[in-house]
Order: sequence, then C-alpha cells, then structure tokens
Amino acid sequence: MIGGGQGAFIGAVHRIAARMDDQYELVCGAFSSDPAKSKASGLLLNIKEDRIYNSWQELIEHEKHLTEGERVQVISIVTPNHVHFTPAKEALENGFHVILDKPATFSLQEAKYLQKVIEQTGNLFCLTHTYTGYPMVKEAKQFVVSGKLGEIRKVYVEYPQGWLSKYEEGGDNKQASWRTDPTKSGIAGAMGDIGTHAFNLCEYVSGLEITKLCADINIVVKGRQLDDDGAVLLKFNNGASGVLVATQVAAGEENNVRIRIYGEKGGIEWQQADANTLQVKILDQPVEIWRTGGSYTSSSAQQNTRTPAGHPEGYLEAFANLYRNFAFTVKAKIAGNTPKPEYLDFPGIKEGVRGMAFIENVIASGKSDKKWTDFTI
Amino acid sequence: MIGGGQGAFIGAVHRIAARMDDQYELVCGAFSSDPAKSKASGLLLNIKEDRIYNSWQELIEHEKHLTEGERVQVISIVTPNHVHFTPAKEALENGFHVILDKPATFSLQEAKYLQKVIEQTGNLFCLTHTYTGYPMVKEAKQFVVSGKLGEIRKVYVEYPQGWLSKYEEGGDNKQASWRTDPTKSGIAGAMGDIGTHAFNLCEYVSGLEITKLCADINIVVKGRQLDDDGAVLLKFNNGASGVLVATQVAAGEENNVRIRIYGEKGGIEWQQADANTLQVKILDQPVEIWRTGGSYTSSSAQQNTRTPAGHPEGYLEAFANLYRNFAFTVKAKIAGNTPKPEYLDFPGIKEGVRGMAFIENVIASGKSDKKWTDFTI
Amino acid sequence: MIGGGQGAFIGAVHRIAARMDDQYELVCGAFSSDPAKSKASGLLLNIKEDRIYNSWQELIEHEKHLTEGERVQVISIVTPNHVHFTPAKEALENGFHVILDKPATFSLQEAKYLQKVIEQTGNLFCLTHTYTGYPMVKEAKQFVVSGKLGEIRKVYVEYPQGWLSKYEEGGDNKQASWRTDPTKSGIAGAMGDIGTHAFNLCEYVSGLEITKLCADINIVVKGRQLDDDGAVLLKFNNGASGVLVATQVAAGEENNVRIRIYGEKGGIEWQQADANTLQVKILDQPVEIWRTGGSYTSSSAQQNTRTPAGHPEGYLEAFANLYRNFAFTVKAKIAGNTPKPEYLDFPGIKEGVRGMAFIENVIASGKSDKKWTDFTI
Amino acid sequence: MIGGGQGAFIGAVHRIAARMDDQYELVCGAFSSDPAKSKASGLLLNIKEDRIYNSWQELIEHEKHLTEGERVQVISIVTPNHVHFTPAKEALENGFHVILDKPATFSLQEAKYLQKVIEQTGNLFCLTHTYTGYPMVKEAKQFVVSGKLGEIRKVYVEYPQGWLSKYEEGGDNKQASWRTDPTKSGIAGAMGDIGTHAFNLCEYVSGLEITKLCADINIVVKGRQLDDDGAVLLKFNNGASGVLVATQVAAGEENNVRIRIYGEKGGIEWQQADANTLQVKILDQPVEIWRTGGSYTSSSAQQNTRTPAGHPEGYLEAFANLYRNFAFTVKAKIAGNTPKPEYLDFPGIKEGVRGMAFIENVIASGKSDKKWTDFTI
Repeated sequence: MIGGGQGAFIGAVHRIAARMDDQYELVCGAFSSDPAKSKASGLLLNIKEDRIYNSWQELIEHEKHLTEGERVQVISIVTPNHVHFTPAKEALENGFHVILDKPATFSLQEAKYLQKVIEQTGNLFCLTHTYTGYPMVKEAKQFVVSGKLGEIRKVYVEYPQGWLSKYEEGGDNKQASWRTDPTKSGIAGAMGDIGTHAFNLCEYVSGLEITKLCADINIVVKGRQLDDDGAVLLKFNNGASGVLVATQVAAGEENNVRIRIYGEKGGIEWQQADANTLQVKILDQPVEIWRTGGSYTSSSAQQNTRTPAGHPEGYLEAFANLYRNFAFTVKAKIAGNTPKPEYLDFPGIKEGVRGMAFIENVIASGKSDKKWTDFTI
Repeated sequence: MIGGGQGAFIGAVHRIAARMDDQYELVCGAFSSDPAKSKASGLLLNIKEDRIYNSWQELIEHEKHLTEGERVQVISIVTPNHVHFTPAKEALENGFHVILDKPATFSLQEAKYLQKVIEQTGNLFCLTHTYTGYPMVKEAKQFVVSGKLGEIRKVYVEYPQGWLSKYEEGGDNKQASWRTDPTKSGIAGAMGDIGTHAFNLCEYVSGLEITKLCADINIVVKGRQLDDDGAVLLKFNNGASGVLVATQVAAGEENNVRIRIYGEKGGIEWQQADANTLQVKILDQPVEIWRTGGSYTSSSAQQNTRTPAGHPEGYLEAFANLYRNFAFTVKAKIAGNTPKPEYLDFPGIKEGVRGMAFIENVIASGKSDKKWTDFTI
Repeated sequence: MIGGGQGAFIGAVHRIAARMDDQYELVCGAFSSDPAKSKASGLLLNIKEDRIYNSWQELIEHEKHLTEGERVQVISIVTPNHVHFTPAKEALENGFHVILDKPATFSLQEAKYLQKVIEQTGNLFCLTHTYTGYPMVKEAKQFVVSGKLGEIRKVYVEYPQGWLSKYEEGGDNKQASWRTDPTKSGIAGAMGDIGTHAFNLCEYVSGLEITKLCADINIVVKGRQLDDDGAVLLKFNNGASGVLVATQVAAGEENNVRIRIYGEKGGIEWQQADANTLQVKILDQPVEIWRTGGSYTSSSAQQNTRTPAGHPEGYLEAFANLYRNFAFTVKAKIAGNTPKPEYLDFPGIKEGVRGMAFIENVIASGKSDKKWTDFTI
Repeated sequence: MIGGGQGAFIGAVHRIAARMDDQYELVCGAFSSDPAKSKASGLLLNIKEDRIYNSWQELIEHEKHLTEGERVQVISIVTPNHVHFTPAKEALENGFHVILDKPATFSLQEAKYLQKVIEQTGNLFCLTHTYTGYPMVKEAKQFVVSGKLGEIRKVYVEYPQGWLSKYEEGGDNKQASWRTDPTKSGIAGAMGDIGTHAFNLCEYVSGLEITKLCADINIVVKGRQLDDDGAVLLKFNNGASGVLVATQVAAGEENNVRIRIYGEKGGIEWQQADANTLQVKILDQPVEIWRTGGSYTSSSAQQNTRTPAGHPEGYLEAFANLYRNFAFTVKAKIAGNTPKPEYLDFPGIKEGVRGMAFIENVIASGKSDKKWTDFTI
C-alpha cells in the first residue's frame, strides 16, 4: 500500500475492503511521505519493520528485488490525486498489478499515458469507483442490459454532500485541505472528488457514453480555490439526455449518491441511503422493490452479495467487491486462466481516462458561454 | 364555473376544493363549449337549469344582470389554456372575482394584460398553483423566512411524470390531446403544464426570483408537437443557483413533485409523495421530521391544516386551502375589512405573469446556443 | 347532525366528509346539549335558525313533522359514546337513516338492541370506521379475497398513539376528558377509542372473525380511570393467529394505524402514515408497491379514489368514502333500486355489534387469569 | 474455528467478522464432523494442513500442546446448538477464550453449567447476538440510559421472517433441516433461532429484565416438529409491559428485526432494514433521525462505526463489532490491563443464560392455560 497512513480516511477503507474476503494480505507499505509517520502507521498495522518503507520509490525498488513468493503482487495507491500517476506508472512498469483510488490521475494527459503503460506492460489495473460495487447497482445495470426498460431516454444522477458547507480548509480537517487544494486535487474540487463518481455511475449503469455537456460550476464558499458545487446537463450517444448534480455545500446532506434512469417502458432508481434496494418502475405497473440477496436477482448481483436478504450490506462490502473481483482476475492471470466474466466487473483504466476527460470537459464547459461543450478525450 | 364538464379532470378537483370548507356554493356554470354537454354536466351537478349556460359569454352576460344576492360572486375558470384570458378578462371587467387554473394564459402578453385588468377593476384573482397550498410547503417557506437555513445557496426542484411516455394524443385521452396541442396549450408542453408548477414552487418557498436560466428542452416521443421533457439550470437574484427538472416521459413515475433548498446552515426537503412531512436538515445535527398538524408547526401551516397529526391531508386539501384563503379574502373585501395576512397566502396575477415569463424564457433558452438566457418579463 | 358543536373534533370531520362529494346538505342540527352553544355553532355553519335545535330530542320531534322534501333524510350522530344509543334508536324509529360515530354504543347490550331496531325499521345505518374507507385498505381486502396470499395465517394490527402520555384529563383538553371518563366512554378507554378501529380493520381486511383472545390491558398514566394501553393475542375462525396493539401512551407517535397480514404465499402491509401505498410481499418475489389511483388497481379501490396516482388522498377522503357510499345506498333505497355492491361497502351494525363485543371481551380477558377468553357476543 | 465448513451460513459470517479489523488470524479449524469435509473446507480457507482437524476434540487436544506463540488464543464455535456446550466447556477448561454462536446451549441447564466454567476458569466468553453490534442500537441504548425518554413504559420487539413459510426440511436446505430438528436445535424453533435475538435486543436496549410472560406458540406449517411462530406478552422489572413477536412464516419478509421503546417523554425506533437510522420521537417535537457516523452521536456508537455518515454499514460490520470489542478485551487481559468499558460492550454468558431461560419459559408458557408465567432461571 502506498499512502493511507494514520488519519487518512480512504486508506483504512481500502484495507478493510482487501481483508474482507481473505484474498489479500497486507505485507508492505509506504504509508506516508513522512518516513516517521510511515513507520508508525506500518507498525500499528503489524507490518514487518523491514517492509515499511520511507517512500513509495523505496517500496517499488525493494519489492521488485524480492523473490516471487515473497514479493508483493498488487500495490494499492491511496494517496491524494497528485501522487497517483507516477507511483502507478512505476509500479506497473516494475511488474506489479495496481489498485488506484479515483480519480485516476491529476490530469487527462496523465491518464492517457497511464493507459498506454497498462497496455504495454499487460499488468492489471483497478480504479476504485466504489458505487459500482453495490449488488443493486449491478442489478440496475442488468435491467438496462435486459431491455426491460426499452431504449434509455433520461439519466439523472446526483451526489449531494454537505461537509464543505463552511470554509474548512487549512485547519485540522486534512480531507478538506487537500481536496480543495489545486496543487493536490487538480483543476476540479467537487467535480473531481464526487462528480467523477456520479459520472462513472451513470455511464456504468446506463451503458451509454456522454457526448456533450453544459455545466454550471460554482465556488460557493468564500475563499475556496476549487469548485464545491456544480450541475451539468448531459447528452448521451443514443440521443438520451440527463442531469448530473454534484455538490459539497448541500448543508445537512451525507453521501446520498442517487441514480434514476428511464427508458421507453420504465425506470429504475437506486440510492446509497437505501443501498440494498433497487426500485423498478414499469409503466402502468406497481413499483417493484428488488433487494440484495433476493432469490430472483441476477447472477451479477448474487456474485457480489455475501449475506441473506434483509441483512444489509454496505459501503465496505461494495468496496470489497472491487477488491475481490480484481483478486480473482489477478489469480486467473497468474494461473494462466481466462478470468470469468463476472470477475472482470470492476472499473479499469478506460473508466479512469473517461473520468479525467469528464473533469476537463466539465470545467471547460463551466467557463464557456456556449451552451454545449463536446465531450472530448 | 367555466369549463369542467363531464370527463374533465381538473374541474372536478376545483369543485371538491370549493366544497370542502363550505365557503362556496356552485350555482351556475358553462361547463363546456358544447351546449348539450354543458347542460348534461350541469344537471348532474344539481345546478338549476336556468343557470346552466351554453357558453361562458352567456354566463357572464346573464349573471351580471342578476341582483346582488342572487348573482354569482366568484367565477372559476378551468378550461384549457387558450380559453383562459378572454373569459377571465370579461369576468373581471363585469364585476366578478376570478379563480383561474394555471398557467395563467396562453401567452405572456395576455398575462400582462390581465394584470392590468385586475389592477384597474380592483377585483380579486387567484391562480391555482396547488402545491403551495400544502401545509408543509408553507412550513418550508417559513423556514427560509426564519433565517434558520442562513443565506440560500441551492434550489433543486423537480416534477417527474411518466404519463406521456407513449404517444397518447389524438385518441380517447382528452388530457393528453389538448396538453400536447400548441393551439390549446401554447408554446410549451411539459414546461407549461408542470414546469410552471415547479417554477412557482421554487420561487414561493425560496422567496427568491430567477434571473437567468439555461434550458435543455426536448420532444422525446416521436410525433409529439410540444416539449415533453426539460431540464433547466437556474440563477437567482441573491446569487444562488439551482436546477429545475420537469418531464412527462419518466416512465413509471406518478406526480412526485419535490423541492430541496440549501442555505449556509442547513436544508429542507419536501415531496408530494410524502406530503405531510418536511425534512429539516441542519448542519451537523440529526435530520428533523416536521409533520402536518404538529403542535410545533407555524401558524401559517396550522391555518392550512384540518386534521390532527398522523391523519394525512392530501392534494384535495391543498387545493381547498387556496379556495378557502381566497374565500376569506373575498369576504373581507365584501365586508370592507382588511383580510388577515394568512388569508392572502394564495397565488395571484404576479405569480401568473412570472409563470408565463418562465414559459417564454425557458422555450427561448431551449432554442438558444448561448448558455444563459436572462429572465425577462 | 347531533353533536359536533364548536370545539368538537370529529363533528367537523363528519361535515367535511359529507360535503366533499356533494351528496349531502347540512340542513339542521342539535350541535350541543347546551342550547346556547348549539345555536352559536349552528349559526356559524349557516344553518337556518329555526332548524338549530336545543336538543336531539327536539330535532327528531320537529324534523319528523316536516314534509318529505323538507325533512332531513340522514342524521349523523357524532356525540360521545354515552349519547349514541338513544338518539340513534329514536332517529331510526322515526324514519331517519343514521350515520353513527364509533364505537356503536355504550355497551354490547345497547348495540344488540340497536341491531334489532335497524332490522325492524328497515332504515339504513352506517358506522364510521374511517380506515376501511381508504382505497388501499380496500385493495388489501381484495388481495385476501383473490386468494393470492393463500390461506391466511397471521394478522398483526396496531394503533399506537402518544397523545395521552401525560395526565391530560380535567383541563382544557375536552377530547382527553370524555374519552377517559367511564361515564361517557364506557368500560374501555384506549380499547374502545382506537382498539375498536384496529379490531374492525383486521376483521375487514382479513375477512376472518376473532374467536379467542388474550389481553394485557393497562392503565399506564397515574390517576387515569380507563385503560390507555393494551396488547392482545388473537385467534381467528380459520385457525390463524395474530396480535392487536392499541396504546395511547406511545409518546411521540401520531396515528399510524398499521396492518400486516400473511398467508401461505405472501403478505400485505398497509399503514396510515403512507396511506396511498399497499405493500404486497409474495414469497421469493420482489415486494410490489401498489398505489392509490394505479391503473392496475381493483374496481373496489378505484370506486373510492378521486385523484390520479401520485396526488395523495388522505383521511378526509377515506371518511368521505363512507359518506358517499352510504349516500348512494340511501338514494338507491329511496328510488326503490338495489344499490350496487360497491355502494354497500361501508361498516354497519354487524360491525358495530362485533366492535362492542370486542370491548367487552377484551376487558374481561384483561381481568382474567386464564390465557384465552372466548369471543362471545 | 469449530464448525463453519462449506455450505454453512454463519461460519462464513464469523470469518468475515473476524477478518474485518485485522484483530484475528484464522490458523486452525475443525470445520465439520466429517473429516474429509473439514479438510476440504480448511484448504479452501488456506489453513495449513496440519492444523485442519478431524474433530473439535482433536483440535483442542492438539492446540493445547502447542507453544504459546503458536497456539490459537480464541476459539469460535459456530456449530448447531447441540454441539455448543461440550466444545465450549472443553475449550474454556483447556485455556482458550471462546466465541460462541447463539443461542448459548441446547438447554438452560447447560448454559448455567457453562457460566460456572467461565467463572472458574476466568477465560473470556462472547455470545454473538449480532444486532447489539449495530451503532444505532448502541445509540438507542444510550438514549434509554440518558433518561431522555423518562421511565420506560412500553417495549415492542419483533423479528419477522418468511423463509420457513413452506415445509423446507429434509431436502437441500441444510439450514431449514437442523433449525427445525429438536435433536439439534433444542426445544424451540423460531423462539430459539430468532426469538432469542429479539429477547436479547429488548433487554439490551431497554436495560430492563423480563419478569413474566404470556406466549402463544404455534407450529404453522404442517409436519414441522418445532415452533415456527410465536407472539409473547411481556412484563418487565420496572412495571413496563411489551410484546415480542418472532415468526418464520411471515411470507415475503426478510430479516427486519425491529424494536420500539417508549418512555414517559418519548420513544425510539430501530429496524435492521434501515440499520443506520435511529428514530427519536420526543413528545410534541419533530421526530429526529439519528444516523450512524453523525458527529452528534455518542462515543458508544462512534466506537463501533468505521465509515463517515451516509456510507452505510451493515450486518457484517455489526458482527465485526462484537469480534473487535472481544479482541480488545482479550488483548487487554493478556497484557494484564483493564479493558476500557467500551471494549466490554459485547454479549456474554449472562445474556446466554437469560436467553436459554427465555426459551424454556416461553415454551412452558406456550403450553400453559395460565395467562402469566414467571420468568425463572
């Protein structure tokens, strides 16, 4: 693991996700750019001292010289955005498979470069867009694929948060500080942090690609350097249209990412606040409540479910589904097998490149007087 | 009553709303442009035969010559949009108070003219934007007024319907036929029918006025003549921004109009599907569930509540609140009294003019390549 | 109308229910046992002074001597329980049809006597168990009738309120005072006031009859004279079992009466807090959300629905359904026609007698050391 | 681990719960009474072959002779009820700490004996009543402790399931087979399997103890040997009363265990279907929605929370909380420290003995003609 030292939020989440299904063992790490902090963090995690590194460079350098049985196989990179690209590139080029926190990189250019590295090395890559790991999100995707909704017409996705309603940066709130800092986050704040999640979710579930967008991007809190709010009109490659909302100043909101998709015959609705429920709305019929663990759910959902219906699975299980599917894929590769299709159901570099393109296009649109900005990569 | 013959939807709603609190008696009507149908409808409603008229012109002509005690005092106009302006104008000019279904008129120009007539005649006018009649919508407005949310930053309003997901016009579905017909509805379909409700609701609750908008307006169903779908980015006069969604092709949706408003300190959320609940979300505090009939609600809400908390009030009660408040205002005027402020809490011609301006601006923006269109009247 | 003067709760509800569908005109009343209050109340309701009576006896005496066209046809009795039997009996015996608030009478003996009067006079009688008027309660009943749930096994019904959590009697709270007073309410408090509603609802929807019960009846608030809380184990005539809970000391609860019924193949759930929704739970299938106004609902539900799906109907509409169905039945009788079956769908004296038997049996069981008490009439 | 071989449900849950916080390593096991199956299961779990045992007896015998650093410290027993007591007793007497699935034993007598063994050996013991591990259940308990609800008056707890609505035993459904078999489950079916969970939850949250009960216990499905349904009236040691429902024939229900508690001043409500929400209902105030991860929650809840508010935690996290708190307690003991009070917040043998007493008393009451049966141990 690179990053994820004491006090980091997402590093701990990655570790639980990795542990949950016993497919990973955490054997080494460079948990902080501060060697002392890296060491302290590693010891707390029961990592052997000689595999707690002072920097990610040292980690890669040392690990690549270990024997095959001893050497770490997969490196998780859970650092802020400006420390995504180089360690990921180096790890891949030195023979490691990589799990990377979103958004993929600091810029679209980096993401496209990383895509080439992945293609050239043939090593495996997973980008942790958590929400696609939920069983009922997978079920939603199956509904679209099944054609039961007919041709898709409307896609509404939203990610409202309230945690940046005040000026939080610069103080104890480490999360607020780096996520609003253009030298660490990149050109986007809310759009990069949660807008990319919403973007990824809507393309994943709908199976469509955005072709044009029209964005209203705002810095609501005085003194903030990056956007903390935005709303985007969307056009898709099949002619459908939609709306994406991502805001961090919806005071009083938690993390209720929500998606609604409507086709000619019906619609679906999913939200994280009721993550084990998928509402299925067919024209002139009663709404159906599909549930995680239901005997009637698709194999895609069941593959990503651990407990019987009614025993709720949550965010950590969704995250763990990415880790588990990636592990099965890595194992298949190592064993020389073709991974089962359901194992390949995790976000990769294609999603990473599109996510970075979303950031660049949406920020450009926000600054433009023209209504529509083409979605270019 | 003008309009509202057999088979009409909104006419029956107006009649129940009028009846509910015993402030109106239905004494005459021109229920259809077809005299035979008008007569049949009137008889079913127990109207005396000599006051069932063949046309609205005849109604006004006859009624104005009756003695004061006998003559109808308030005329409800519940016809399609193209038959709003002239009867309303004639009624007002002949001494009647008027209740008019929304949107106010066929065009903005007509609405502005009607405004002048109202000012000149001094007669009273109510526009039935139903949703502002709900007790918890009034409570929401009070929250904004109270300052408990701080300065308003974000306004999200949506009105998703699914009933026009197929091509319904031309057949038995009378509602679908006129509402999608530009000679009867005007220049807008969904935006005029339900977009104006969403627009009115967001200005009513937020107390703000829209100054700019950016619209994506669509005809989704093939062969339809007017928009059946749209999404609009909004800017308000205090610097806040927002999103308005109105669609009639969200297959599987009913009429779940919903509004969310966020200020510096917190937010509120109301939706028709749970009409007696107002969610209050204050930063870093538990969400509060305010309920119709709660002993802690404002006098504004209580004034518009009939039953104890937990006995749900619905759409008809909300509609009846408009009628009742208007009746109390009319009575006060007749008695020469100043109506209590809470009686004046019903939509009037100002809202009617702004609604028509919304229609014209939003359709113009939909056709424009520029991102922002100024909201002009 | 007998009772329902200023300050009374249920009288106003009856009046709105009567008005809503224009099937009744309020022409006379004895609104209070205090003649001055009766007069004041009547004037406020725009009743002609000569038909505002000083007592219910005077009302019956005068009205019966009026001509047929002038005379009131239906008398609503909305007094406390101890003033149910005699006015109802007198009204029926003098040729009037009667609508009576629940519970039917002060004692089971009175109810059985009233039943005989009804049979002998042939006049019509409606008991206002409101909750059976909800469209989705009717849909629930249809589900049971349809056999889609299979043989019924379990019935859970509950009516939790919190309004009597403190000692409220004796002061301004007129409702609390008479409802806890054994000289006015009878032998039961909560069990008579809301337990009978729960009882009626479960027998109505399930189509079953209770044969045995085992009750835990409590006076929770110190100084109170009648039960304010109870829970009852139930046995039904088909072998099913169940639980009935009625309490007025569930502090913080409103009026969320709720019923759940399970058969061999599935279950249904309805609650007043979400009155336009019926949850249908079929074994190994997604839960279905049936909604008031849905095009797929039964004719029984549609007959009792006024607005399109998504425009919520509430308590007053449910109440009005009883009034309307009764009106249609009265009209049919007057016209010498057989009323349509759906018009006959309102609670009558059979339900009244069973409700009074419930009160007597449940109070007896509460005092018994035996587990099971037979449900006797 | 003893039990939990391939195909077992709860064994896998225990393993994930143990893994999640990296406080346990699974090093040995007797996963089945069938040696071949034990071996196959162990290999799949990456257990070293020499520590996969043929029987639990062999496990204890071998492990106790290993050196302290090598020897397993905690043994999890996840077998059917009839194989709880002896392995638990042997494990404790041979120096191991024990985590045991509920209910504690096959009979109350065994549980009381086990209690003595625990006291005599001084070894630590945890009983996995999962639901007490939820953060919002802990918050609920804190509400009661805080006195904000006043003296507790009513406790309603229910656990409705539908999975045994048909006769499932004897076939492939291993869970159904042993849980309905009196030689494996003991004298109770539903009451032992889920009734004990409901019992434990209501005593945990309320802080009260049941003193009397009155049970209606049923075998609903023909041919079944043990109860699959029951409802129980409750009396508590402070004078409060309540109702406990546990059923496995509520066709269409999942696992929505739910608890509602009301005191003089207000109530609380929690249900597993919305596990991260605690409804707080204070008399004459808006209901408050307390949420897992809320900054306003108690230290007791926060200690058992892993993710920020809005990222749902579920059943596995609740289970893991028991494991984690137990691990911290074991570590403190090994280190010779006093464990922090929050670490001791897991169910132990006292709860185990009371749970077994509940089973014996509730079954006795079910057979009795007397209304009330004293809760004896």
